[in-house]
Amino acid sequence: MRIIIDVMSGDNAPGELIKGAVLAAEEYSSVEIAVVGNEEVIAETAQEQELSLERITVIPSVSVIEMEDKALSVVREKKDSSMSVGLHALAQGEGDAFVSAGNTGALLAGATLLVRRIRGIQRAGIATILPFPTPVLLMDSGANLEVTPENLEQFAVMGSLYMEKIYGIREPRVGQINNGTEYNKGLPLQVAGYARLGSADINFVGNVETKALPTGVCDVAVTDGFTGNAVLKTVEGMGKFFSAQLKDLFMTSLATKLSAVVIRGKLRDFKRRFDASEHGGAPLLGISKPVIKAHGSSDANAIKNAIHQAMTFVNTGINYEIAAWATAFEEKLKAERLAADAKAEITAAEDTTK
Amino acid sequence: MRIIIDVMSGDNAPGELIKGAVLAAEEYSSVEIAVVGNEEVIAETAQEQELSLERITVIPSVSVIEMEDKALSVVREKKDSSMSVGLHALAQGEGDAFVSAGNTGALLAGATLLVRRIRGIQRAGIATILPFPTPVLLMDSGANLEVTPENLEQFAVMGSLYMEKIYGIREPRVGQINNGTEYNKGLPLQVAGYARLGSADINFVGNVETKALPTGVCDVAVTDGFTGNAVLKTVEGMGKFFSAQLKDLFMTSLATKLSAVVIRGKLRDFKRRFDASEHGGAPLLGISKPVIKAHGSSDANAIKNAIHQAMTFVNTGINYEIAAWATAFEEKLKAERLAADAKAEITAAEDTTK
Repeated sequence: MRIIIDVMSGDNAPGELIKGAVLAAEEYSSVEIAVVGNEEVIAETAQEQELSLERITVIPSVSVIEMEDKALSVVREKKDSSMSVGLHALAQGEGDAFVSAGNTGALLAGATLLVRRIRGIQRAGIATILPFPTPVLLMDSGANLEVTPENLEQFAVMGSLYMEKIYGIREPRVGQINNGTEYNKGLPLQVAGYARLGSADINFVGNVETKALPTGVCDVAVTDGFTGNAVLKTVEGMGKFFSAQLKDLFMTSLATKLSAVVIRGKLRDFKRRFDASEHGGAPLLGISKPVIKAHGSSDANAIKNAIHQAMTFVNTGINYEIAAWATAFEEKLKAERLAADAKAEITAAEDTTK
Repeated sequence: MRIIIDVMSGDNAPGELIKGAVLAAEEYSSVEIAVVGNEEVIAETAQEQELSLERITVIPSVSVIEMEDKALSVVREKKDSSMSVGLHALAQGEGDAFVSAGNTGALLAGATLLVRRIRGIQRAGIATILPFPTPVLLMDSGANLEVTPENLEQFAVMGSLYMEKIYGIREPRVGQINNGTEYNKGLPLQVAGYARLGSADINFVGNVETKALPTGVCDVAVTDGFTGNAVLKTVEGMGKFFSAQLKDLFMTSLATKLSAVVIRGKLRDFKRRFDASEHGGAPLLGISKPVIKAHGSSDANAIKNAIHQAMTFVNTGINYEIAAWATAFEEKLKAERLAADAKAEITAAEDTTK
């Protein structure tokens, strides 16, 4: 197995990215690690940090996609970027999975256009773990601002397979994010989504309100990318806010400062839970080969975790199951449309004979 | 001034609602308090709790709108409900403001159909305070699942006036909730919304991401009701989650238990911040008379606060300013449409003469 890492993108590139790749190469001896980037920069950075590139393959690239760059730059002006070169390498079979901490829009566009979606999957989506005691996979968390009920069904199935295979959850509970739990709540999208999800081959638990997400009401929460993005970023902002408040709280007096020492470990766990680096990356589900979006602020450890996640993604063969399901889904859609056409024809014939 | 309170709706009705009304009548001697509800129930409840109804007027009603009832029941099957009777009384000038802890959908429908919107206001919205160190008014937080860019402009102006008059904030900063801060981010609604908000007579600070809401990035955050509802409920859920986590944290050891005693006050502040009863109610902005939606779980103190909020709403005369603005806005829209028509005619004439 070979994992490709874009070491030029992200807030801490290239230093932490290269270090993460080297750590992974040392720890996971069964896989090959390939890094994409400027050869000179990589060599210099490794030397500075006294990292051995012995077990690392370098795939050379020229430019870097910045956060401000347009998504399509990955297939236009910046075809020679680390992200683009890495995705090309993945598409051409030079690796089994790709990890990048770069521009999310560009990564999704590049993955879709260069690596391609799984046949039958209409939209790939970003799946993010919300770090509650019972983790919740939020999908889509920002890739597709507008979606159809069919997209929601596909997100639900892909998200379920992911939580089953990666987190070992049997029959993951899927909820649809809505403004109330009743079946007829929400916009036309959610009403139609409820019907589709209810008849899909998943463990659908109905509509969920976002206030219930921290309490373990579901394992997978499906929604459009606009709402998903708003929810994800609210959780992120609240996590940071509470961490800061907690720090203030413990700086109040000598007694609290002492007690902060006593529960140092617990406080660290608390902070970590909302620290993205501990949760690895967000998979782009629906792409024909595993692509992991690591958080922009990833350090070496986060990158190593994202590489491990990519390995698990490959090993569990989720994509084969998604592909099998998507083929069946296409057939189901065809049948639904044929049935609808037939019904319309019968109605028309009846009208004529009247 | 006379404030009308629906004492039959809400999780703690009628007991806490009646108590809250009595507390307000005692504390705010300059206003008259009228309660709507079943006369016998009110008399019995007051007697049980040894509350004096001396300073209270009772407006009799029969049924009660439940949380499960449809919004339109307020003008159909349950015209004799406390909410409906109260809104009728408000519309007919028997009071200056109305407070209810009941079904939000029904309250909005009833306020719109019975009390009516301010002329020129296209949609009334629910404005909720997010309890951060710098409070943020979130509008719409659930009344209108789908909105137009014009609606967003109206929410922004009404929200600004509210924060200025009630919270004393000069030139409140208005942000549009979006999936990024760049002007061209989001769905067509947000792109058009950005243009409208940028040219409106408000202090528009651009697009804001929800992760920035706790950090005081704006005083008013405008969005559609679906997104607003998801954000509001995420904040609510996270607040409860962290309160529970904090409790666990302090129960760890003797030292932490002791320090919890030391910072008891601070801990209480922390919990209170996310306890809805401390923030009063959410005004329905755009209705021709002040209508305050108190939280469903309001206790007597929360109801008293909501009554005080209603008094301030009346005293500050926000609605006169909204009305003046809305009239000017209607003229502006007319002018915009005339200009668009004229432009289309000129283009057509040019095409003909070519």
